[in-house]
Amino acid sequence: MRILGIDPGVATIGFGLIEAERGQAQMITYGAITTPAWIPLSKRLYQISLDMEELIGQLKPDVIAVEELFFNNNITTGIAVAHGRGVILCAAEKCGIPLHEYTPSQVKLAVVGYGKAEKRQVMDMTRRLLHLKAVPRPDDAADALALALCHARSATSRLPQLNNVKETI
Amino acid sequence: MRILGIDPGVATIGFGLIEAERGQAQMITYGAITTPAWIPLSKRLYQISLDMEELIGQLKPDVIAVEELFFNNNITTGIAVAHGRGVILCAAEKCGIPLHEYTPSQVKLAVVGYGKAEKRQVMDMTRRLLHLKAVPRPDDAADALALALCHARSATSRLPQLNNVKETI
Repeated sequence: MRILGIDPGVATIGFGLIEAERGQAQMITYGAITTPAWIPLSKRLYQISLDMEELIGQLKPDVIAVEELFFNNNITTGIAVAHGRGVILCAAEKCGIPLHEYTPSQVKLAVVGYGKAEKRQVMDMTRRLLHLKAVPRPDDAADALALALCHARSATSRLPQLNNVKETI
Repeated sequence: MRILGIDPGVATIGFGLIEAERGQAQMITYGAITTPAWIPLSKRLYQISLDMEELIGQLKPDVIAVEELFFNNNITTGIAVAHGRGVILCAAEKCGIPLHEYTPSQVKLAVVGYGKAEKRQVMDMTRRLLHLKAVPRPDDAADALALALCHARSATSRLPQLNNVKETI
């Protein structure tokens, strides 16, 4: 299963593609889409939509994992990121790729095993699980790979549902 | 000049088209694009992008006026609206229509003459300025017409720049 993780934004959108099978994951590629701050927001969003469609067309993921937004601090940043996220979700839908959303806590829990893990721990576990020599740069790309791993571990590591039935002889 | 006002959102996107010339404005059409709450956000956003492109294609505006986002209270609503607004800005850019953004205060100032006017006053002045018998429904459409009027009054009501030059005989 080819999983494309996306760390949404407007200035920098991280992406990371992994191949996951039977609990094993392998990094295929990662990087970032960037838009310059000096052009109007509408042009940046349109550029992001074109780049996202091209990226999905090239990488041919089976599924996309994208971060859910939670903002307690900087609402201005939150509003800007949500603009970009809207365009990204729209592009995924246009390309017909199934979409899954994960909170930062879910990513931490799936990758590190602890929902309140430090960012540094998530980065390091992402590096280890994908057998990489160094943590991918920029951070947005590493976050995107962590999201892809989160989906892989959520989608493949579940035990079959046990029926709560007492067998009788 | 055909001005299309857009009140952004995800559940309801108000629109209102006016023709403005030499300080006079006339309503051409108004309405709302709606998406049902029970379908996933990505599908709603994609539907909005398709509907926006179709609307722009049909109405052929010279310019689009869209509301800027300010949220002091409900951040969850703000984040949702920003997703929709991102897709709307993207559609306007894709169609190559010039875009202008106005804050609620700018709309109030341009339509009522007072930046802290009540919503009811804005609605009533919109009705009067466009010679309508009743305030348009839904509210989102009335807000969109007010945005279009705001652009008309901002773009056409300015006096020619006076040169501060003393004439000498």
